[in-house]
Amino acid sequence: MPDLYLEDYAVGQLFKHGSVTVDAEAIKAFAREFDPQPFHTDEEAARDTFFQGLAASGWHTAALTMRLFVENGLKPAGGLIGAGVEDLRWPRAVRPGDVLRIEVEVIEVRSSHSRPTHGLVKTRAVTLNQKDEPVQVQVTSVFVPRRAR
Amino acid sequence: MPDLYLEDYAVGQLFKHGSVTVDAEAIKAFAREFDPQPFHTDEEAARDTFFQGLAASGWHTAALTMRLFVENGLKPAGGLIGAGVEDLRWPRAVRPGDVLRIEVEVIEVRSSHSRPTHGLVKTRAVTLNQKDEPVQVQVTSVFVPRRAR
Repeated sequence: MPDLYLEDYAVGQLFKHGSVTVDAEAIKAFAREFDPQPFHTDEEAARDTFFQGLAASGWHTAALTMRLFVENGLKPAGGLIGAGVEDLRWPRAVRPGDVLRIEVEVIEVRSSHSRPTHGLVKTRAVTLNQKDEPVQVQVTSVFVPRRAR
Repeated sequence: MPDLYLEDYAVGQLFKHGSVTVDAEAIKAFAREFDPQPFHTDEEAARDTFFQGLAASGWHTAALTMRLFVENGLKPAGGLIGAGVEDLRWPRAVRPGDVLRIEVEVIEVRSSHSRPTHGLVKTRAVTLNQKDEPVQVQVTSVFVPRRAR
């Protein structure tokens, strides 16, 4: 599939994606480096916490979602370059053994004032587990180049 | 410093933090796992891209910011549990050798409707490099327990 330009995007487009499995070791390894709190690093210590068991850091879920984005069909020419996130929530914890996938919908396509050669494509991405429960909701804008005339 | 409860937070409080250095290997290792795009994984390939050189994934900057949060003085009882992010932007790329720190200000303290035992503390966190240039701006709410009466 070729790279896409601003003119190729339209509100309502849906993009399909692969999936990624999260295991306990990956949850703990990420957390030891970036979010060293007991509910992310130790099954035993996690039991008596807010999460009542080992749960992935929300930032791990966000990073895995980025991985799914890069591997998906959205493919803007020049790469996926985030202009900003205006909503990022984790309605449910990611647990060991979860299989995550994302559903991405284009919700806005517009020109960029600061970069006339580019526009902005805004997407709403929902990260779902194997039970189709949302574990992350994210509204993000990415820079996308215009096609040369 | 003891853990803090909802009653201990007030709008305008500032929290102090340590720092973290980011090197090229860390940038590439994170990107290979979570954001495998040439401007994050390869110095040579990065030259002719939007970033004009190796740059950290925004999600790497976000994860490092979480690390600084965990090590800081904000310390809610029960841990730092994100209720949601309502703004997350990367005004400048993080480059190899950058030293990052964060400045965190409490901008709202309120009750939680869904969890009467907790409240929500909203912070604005700016991640700065060694030149005091902002590389990330983030507005996040965390769940904080009320002190038992």
